[in-house]
Amino acid sequence: MKLTDMNEVGFFEGTEKLLEIWFENDFDGNDSDLRNIPRRELDGLLEIVNAEIVSTTRNEHIDSYVLSESSMFISKDRFIIKTCGITKLLNAVQPIIKLAKHYGRMNKVHNFFYSRRIYLRPDEQVGVHKSFRDEVKYLNKIIPDGSAYVLGQQESEQWYLFTMDNASKGIEKDDVTLEILMSDLDEEAMTHFSKMKYETSEEVVMNTGISRIIPGALNDGILFDPIGYSLNGLHKESYYTIHVTPQPMCSYVSFETNIRKKNYSQLVNRVLSVFKPGSFIITLFSNKNAPCGIATQALERVCATGYECDDQHHKLLKNYSLSYAHFVKKV
Amino acid sequence: MKLTDMNEVGFFEGTEKLLEIWFENDFDGNDSDLRNIPRRELDGLLEIVNAEIVSTTRNEHIDSYVLSESSMFISKDRFIIKTCGITKLLNAVQPIIKLAKHYGRMNKVHNFFYSRRIYLRPDEQVGVHKSFRDEVKYLNKIIPDGSAYVLGQQESEQWYLFTMDNASKGIEKDDVTLEILMSDLDEEAMTHFSKMKYETSEEVVMNTGISRIIPGALNDGILFDPIGYSLNGLHKESYYTIHVTPQPMCSYVSFETNIRKKNYSQLVNRVLSVFKPGSFIITLFSNKNAPCGIATQALERVCATGYECDDQHHKLLKNYSLSYAHFVKKV
Repeated sequence: MKLTDMNEVGFFEGTEKLLEIWFENDFDGNDSDLRNIPRRELDGLLEIVNAEIVSTTRNEHIDSYVLSESSMFISKDRFIIKTCGITKLLNAVQPIIKLAKHYGRMNKVHNFFYSRRIYLRPDEQVGVHKSFRDEVKYLNKIIPDGSAYVLGQQESEQWYLFTMDNASKGIEKDDVTLEILMSDLDEEAMTHFSKMKYETSEEVVMNTGISRIIPGALNDGILFDPIGYSLNGLHKESYYTIHVTPQPMCSYVSFETNIRKKNYSQLVNRVLSVFKPGSFIITLFSNKNAPCGIATQALERVCATGYECDDQHHKLLKNYSLSYAHFVKKV
Repeated sequence: MKLTDMNEVGFFEGTEKLLEIWFENDFDGNDSDLRNIPRRELDGLLEIVNAEIVSTTRNEHIDSYVLSESSMFISKDRFIIKTCGITKLLNAVQPIIKLAKHYGRMNKVHNFFYSRRIYLRPDEQVGVHKSFRDEVKYLNKIIPDGSAYVLGQQESEQWYLFTMDNASKGIEKDDVTLEILMSDLDEEAMTHFSKMKYETSEEVVMNTGISRIIPGALNDGILFDPIGYSLNGLHKESYYTIHVTPQPMCSYVSFETNIRKKNYSQLVNRVLSVFKPGSFIITLFSNKNAPCGIATQALERVCATGYECDDQHHKLLKNYSLSYAHFVKKV
């Protein structure tokens, strides 16, 4: 296929649904580990969601999976799954809880986060995913002590969260999640994420500047045919993941990591210099033990060169602080 | 009337609607001044809204009116009117624009702000005031280049704004508006705002600590029978206004001022020490020439002793920055 215009590929909903569940163990013994869930069960789980595993790698802390639609990271007590398109991610919640109990010997949900940006085309979503209200109604039945939050003023830039944080005793170790959700990306920068330009993910990593974002990471990426790109990276206990939808009509790039840093300015600017968005949202979760301190102040210290922040929202949860900021290119 | 319980007075919607319109003059000559609008026209204007003037005072910069339901401040080029209860404030917009042109010789709306907190009982409001959506629809017809904003995450604590700021060239002089909207007030503190306790507004000002909020102000207040209190104060080019609904079932106190300060911490704490709210919202508008700098940073510097901020929202408008913060008493 030869593309003269990347828009020929058509519309794709790059916006991901993100589920992060922390488990704990009331059973006797020390053999509890979510990574004991067998591969055939993970394949079955993803079938329910409408995604499949396309590549996998691991280190001693995390099993990493690149999916046909985004990513999955499994560690001892944390299950992360992120899917884009019109996948039905919430159908996986109850099966994950069952698998965690049966194979992982983790019988208790310790913390729960479901979040997403507003979709570009909500009407094309399936079932409860058409509206956040319905997603919350569905989740309330499974996680009765959850709370829903809407952050961001402008409707087209809103970000939704459902969490049980207010009801639980929190995660003791330091924990951070940083997301950069980028829109209206530079068309020239997007041409890199295409089979017309490169053969392999390694070429993409080396030629775009992705290799400099978190140096020394163990990378596992897929360059889709004809366009589109997904990458998972592992670095000790940290993961990062990048997903690129390059079509100008719906261009979208997400970056997510749990890497602990005192100051995220340099990391954010390295990401922006690769993808060159017209606008983006940053969301930052941090708990009290995180090296960056509370999210409000951590985000305050982020200076995104060439951009200005036109909307910020900070929310103090029981054990976490949460910050949302929307940036636009300076004119 | 002897009250054993202030709730006997019944429910009152203390939540105000606030309108601030800045005008400019394309006419020849220098005789333009909104204070030239005659009193009989102001009385007629307030009849449309369902309020009336109960007391008035002035200095060289501002004419101040205490209304049966809140306050009005008129200066050369700025018209502020704030009304509570089930008043129909938006009915006044077109008449004010006409009066400004005819008597004030100000033919152009230079900037426009309409804001309010969410009502305690929206269904009891009249006409377009039942919903912010309808208010915006109504205002869009009069102010075609306006934008609507919703700040605050929790539905019961939301704050609404309609402004033409994004479309206009802004107010050149330094300008700030600070509001503190207090709920769930200390019942003991509220007993001061009653005819059972004091005869006059002066006694209230002296005995509650209000006199220390902005020392040296020219005060004009009304103590309602049996309970309730309104105060307007003038200090050079600054005004402040306080409205108290003491009934425990719907207790609400608002404080508003345009006083210019580098740091609002002391002022905020003086207000809190008088009224002792269980929770409150601060909203701060500032333009680029304001001594406190951009509202985000100005609000960041506010340390409200005994309270914690659980929700902050910052919005950069074209010529103004706007900050919202929700505080609750520390447990």
